[in-house]
Amino acid sequence: MEIYSLLEKVRTQKPVIHHLTNWVTIYDCANIVKVFGASPVMAHAKEESGDMAKIASALVLNIGTLTPEFVESMKIAAKSANENGIPVILDVCGAGATKFRDDKCFELLNEVRIDIIKGNASEVARIAGEDVMTKGVDATEIEKDLLVLAKNLANARHCTVVITGKEDIICNPKKCYIVKNGTEIMSHIVGTGCMATSVIGTFAAVEKNLAKASVAGLVCFEIAAELAEKESKGAGSFKANLFDAVYNLNKEQIEKMQKIDE
Amino acid sequence: MEIYSLLEKVRTQKPVIHHLTNWVTIYDCANIVKVFGASPVMAHAKEESGDMAKIASALVLNIGTLTPEFVESMKIAAKSANENGIPVILDVCGAGATKFRDDKCFELLNEVRIDIIKGNASEVARIAGEDVMTKGVDATEIEKDLLVLAKNLANARHCTVVITGKEDIICNPKKCYIVKNGTEIMSHIVGTGCMATSVIGTFAAVEKNLAKASVAGLVCFEIAAELAEKESKGAGSFKANLFDAVYNLNKEQIEKMQKIDE
Amino acid sequence: MEIYSLLEKVRTQKPVIHHLTNWVTIYDCANIVKVFGASPVMAHAKEESGDMAKIASALVLNIGTLTPEFVESMKIAAKSANENGIPVILDVCGAGATKFRDDKCFELLNEVRIDIIKGNASEVARIAGEDVMTKGVDATEIEKDLLVLAKNLANARHCTVVITGKEDIICNPKKCYIVKNGTEIMSHIVGTGCMATSVIGTFAAVEKNLAKASVAGLVCFEIAAELAEKESKGAGSFKANLFDAVYNLNKEQIEKMQKIDE
Repeated sequence: MEIYSLLEKVRTQKPVIHHLTNWVTIYDCANIVKVFGASPVMAHAKEESGDMAKIASALVLNIGTLTPEFVESMKIAAKSANENGIPVILDVCGAGATKFRDDKCFELLNEVRIDIIKGNASEVARIAGEDVMTKGVDATEIEKDLLVLAKNLANARHCTVVITGKEDIICNPKKCYIVKNGTEIMSHIVGTGCMATSVIGTFAAVEKNLAKASVAGLVCFEIAAELAEKESKGAGSFKANLFDAVYNLNKEQIEKMQKIDE
Repeated sequence: MEIYSLLEKVRTQKPVIHHLTNWVTIYDCANIVKVFGASPVMAHAKEESGDMAKIASALVLNIGTLTPEFVESMKIAAKSANENGIPVILDVCGAGATKFRDDKCFELLNEVRIDIIKGNASEVARIAGEDVMTKGVDATEIEKDLLVLAKNLANARHCTVVITGKEDIICNPKKCYIVKNGTEIMSHIVGTGCMATSVIGTFAAVEKNLAKASVAGLVCFEIAAELAEKESKGAGSFKANLFDAVYNLNKEQIEKMQKIDE
Repeated sequence: MEIYSLLEKVRTQKPVIHHLTNWVTIYDCANIVKVFGASPVMAHAKEESGDMAKIASALVLNIGTLTPEFVESMKIAAKSANENGIPVILDVCGAGATKFRDDKCFELLNEVRIDIIKGNASEVARIAGEDVMTKGVDATEIEKDLLVLAKNLANARHCTVVITGKEDIICNPKKCYIVKNGTEIMSHIVGTGCMATSVIGTFAAVEKNLAKASVAGLVCFEIAAELAEKESKGAGSFKANLFDAVYNLNKEQIEKMQKIDE
């Protein structure tokens, strides 16, 4: 896969990535998009979320700190994106933790077109109708074969499904990929999951095959994490180094380090 | 006090710490909990804040950017925590700055059970009924003997009281502790006070004696700050180093550096 | 211009800077004010935003993530600031992106007294009535002579106008300044524009000539950025180093590095 050429497209085209995301990691989501070379916008008022989606090249939704009003704004933005042919990525952050959260996820999935569903194993399992309990925002171990789960959900919802974890699974109805990049320290700070979603949105803005876009985004982000870890003394320096590594990411690093199973 | 054994409990049990906190430092609050080894959740919708409290092991409330609706969600979460025997920590951030803020603090204190009240000297003095004017979010010097103030408030409210400052005072109705760790640079960046509250919540999730939990949390956090400062060129590198130091904090450092008066 | 003496005033007087700002960069806005030595407050509830403005020495408004309710709170705070003679700074963040955003900007400009209007070229052009399309939050190239634009808007609105970019233009009805400090990497991370506004607010709290205050704030912030860049490997370390450089900024650096055209 020509991953570096997609990164170059991001850096050259500087697509606008509109977000309705959570209040915890909103800065990191905006900043990772910016440091990748694209242009983040985060506008959640229902009075403008639809108009803003029109000038964007991708829409990222993340339910981490959802309210009923916020989900209404998400729907307005998503309908506008749907009408204008702009890809919509939904991070089902925390699905399974409360009934309210699950209900709102299904509302979004049923009322607007979601092009990429993204979450960790337990979150996506819940969305697929499996009975799994989410503990906080971390993945719990689940029994199901995740590849089958992702493939079935991609077929059922006619979309791309991304399950992140030690290995990332990316499926559309036709094909699955496994990305084996990344490093354990990513799970020791808050925000890497949300940033990964924003990065997927960024690459979805420049590549119509959304499974390929997701793979490319995850590979770039996770290679940067591997490079960052080598320079780090702990969780604090890792995070600063992660942005440095994304900023400086080059063709040689990507081609040498990428680990993708098709 | 066996502080390191409590830190080990946090790292092993990975308790879920539910927050309804302010929008300024929400990322840092979540991240410090995560880097200590626990699992942060920040869900403020009134439709789910009660359910989320049920799956948590401690509830942290912080009124830094309160609204009437937000305080309603806090009450729902706190009542759920009260019913389920989960400790509730209230950071009375900015108490004394406006009448609205004071009124809402007293509403919370009177309508739900607060297990730990935490603030700086002027904030806690206001909650105790003293007439002190808060300038911004920094402590103002006050005349009162803070130890007496804390002890009286702990007795009046049947709870644990934590006053942070150059020296931290921790009292329950039976006993007081003074923690003398920490460093001045902590007061030169935004967020150390809010993070301290989240850390106290994290330790309250694994230790039933909430005064001991508060002491242990503050000692760990402030030793990490002392270690971080030694590596720092200023406020920016200090913050990254603080997370590194928490991430790497070990038994030897704690036993050698802890400064607690009982 | 005696820029260092204004920085000293900030550090000595520690003015309270009240903000109603966006949720993306709210931490950075608070922290940059703090690291400059002043005291940030961010209180957006309509029930207290007016009272909080009374105890502040400057009020910073930023419409980055505006809603109708939020703008109502801004008006309450601004009216309180107007009545109490406290300068009001408005960052017209994202003006031109949606009709809603433009309408709300004009509502603020027409209903309360704004003392400093601040934005990038395309945003300020829109506020001045020029027809420019904003792409994300980055400046687009515009044809108009920006100096004329700023001067005309300052005259029309009887205020100070600040247009930030590669060179910053600062005009009041009587005089214009151009600040040539700063570095390109500032535009590769999220938050430098919002922080610049908070810094201008901080200096406006200690200097009645608001054009001079704006120049001083920008010069200090941008010299710090130049110093930070020299120590940085990329966007992540640049940001940590920026706070270090502000923290350590001294008279010699300012006098040697400042680039101001009058």
